[in-house]
Amino acid sequence: MQVSARNALKATVKEVVEGSVNTEVTLEVAPGVEVVAIITKSSAHKLQLEEGKQAYAIIKSSDVMVAVD
Amino acid sequence: MQVSARNALKATVKEVVEGSVNTEVTLEVAPGVEVVAIITKSSAHKLQLEEGKQAYAIIKSSDVMVAVD
Amino acid sequence: MQVSARNALKATVKEVVEGSVNTEVTLEVAPGVEVVAIITKSSAHKLQLEEGKQAYAIIKSSDVMVAVD
Amino acid sequence: MQVSARNALKATVKEVVEGSVNTEVTLEVAPGVEVVAIITKSSAHKLQLEEGKQAYAIIKSSDVMVAVD
Amino acid sequence: MQVSARNALKATVKEVVEGSVNTEVTLEVAPGVEVVAIITKSSAHKLQLEEGKQAYAIIKSSDVMVAVD
Amino acid sequence: MQVSARNALKATVKEVVEGSVNTEVTLEVAPGVEVVAIITKSSAHKLQLEEGKQAYAIIKSSDVMVAVD
Repeated sequence: MQVSARNALKATVKEVVEGSVNTEVTLEVAPGVEVVAIITKSSAHKLQLEEGKQAYAIIKSSDVMVAVD
Repeated sequence: MQVSARNALKATVKEVVEGSVNTEVTLEVAPGVEVVAIITKSSAHKLQLEEGKQAYAIIKSSDVMVAVD
Repeated sequence: MQVSARNALKATVKEVVEGSVNTEVTLEVAPGVEVVAIITKSSAHKLQLEEGKQAYAIIKSSDVMVAVD
Repeated sequence: MQVSARNALKATVKEVVEGSVNTEVTLEVAPGVEVVAIITKSSAHKLQLEEGKQAYAIIKSSDVMVAVD
Repeated sequence: MQVSARNALKATVKEVVEGSVNTEVTLEVAPGVEVVAIITKSSAHKLQLEEGKQAYAIIKSSDVMVAVD
Repeated sequence: MQVSARNALKATVKEVVEGSVNTEVTLEVAPGVEVVAIITKSSAHKLQLEEGKQAYAIIKSSDVMVAVD
């Protein structure tokens, strides 16, 4: 399946922390560069996410803000 | 200013493309890893974004999806 | 590719209207039930969307609101 | 009240599952076509959602992605 | 219609600026406090928005970030 | 840090309610006008949010909908 979201960053799953409804997934998109995702627990199970697994961080370009110092 | 969004990735502005209302900003967050942001043209002007400038990609963790092959 | 978004509705593309930066895509998810998506023009091209093509409407459950009369 | 979101799909509430802060609402928008919404528990109470109730799934068009196989 | 979004701020329309696809609507939610919304042009027409009209700014609580100096 | 989001409303923190993963923050942006934000608990701690503190409600203009009666 190919998705219309502009950003699909190759990543390695670093950590998976389950809450009651949601799961927090930490993805390493480059050495030392991490992106945290919060997805539903049922989605995390469906995708069988676990440390070390190859995955993608999918982000719509309209959901990215830019900041400067 | 410090923002509640979980993801604030250090980046370098690679490209700024102006549309009529929105501006597309390409940010390099690691060598070869790019994130595209679509922000309003007025915000892009306010932040004086231009190629080579240091910036951050700000993304709420609830806006990140995870995919696997 | 399998995505963490909870909602992936099978659909048929009914209409594709290109703007300068964005493209409006009308998807029929059931007879007479349509969902409109606005995606970037470059994504629409990449997916080769055109009338009659099979596709999916992907929606995060946290982006769905509920209303009652 | 009339809202600017492009998608307002007529639906029947199929299931309401309460978490500690959020409530998961399954809406049937056509026979066999379901959309899951996660809203705050207080909103679910305010709207008095329960199985069988008529409701709408409200989705901004910029929150809909498109995917193809 | 009653919507599940937590924030529904009473407002007065201050300005309506039409783009090619989107319309920028400035809403005054208190004296001197303005909120800018970008909605589709067709939605703005449907709601017959014009300067001085009473309206509401509808915002999901998960779309609000918090910042401190 | 300066952020590209169009709306940065000055506010006073009125209430902070912690859940298991998320924290609900009520911000007063004008006398009697409140905006509720749901952010992660770790972000709320990082920002040291507490009643009476000065803060900002940050909202992307594409996340604001407009409604009329």
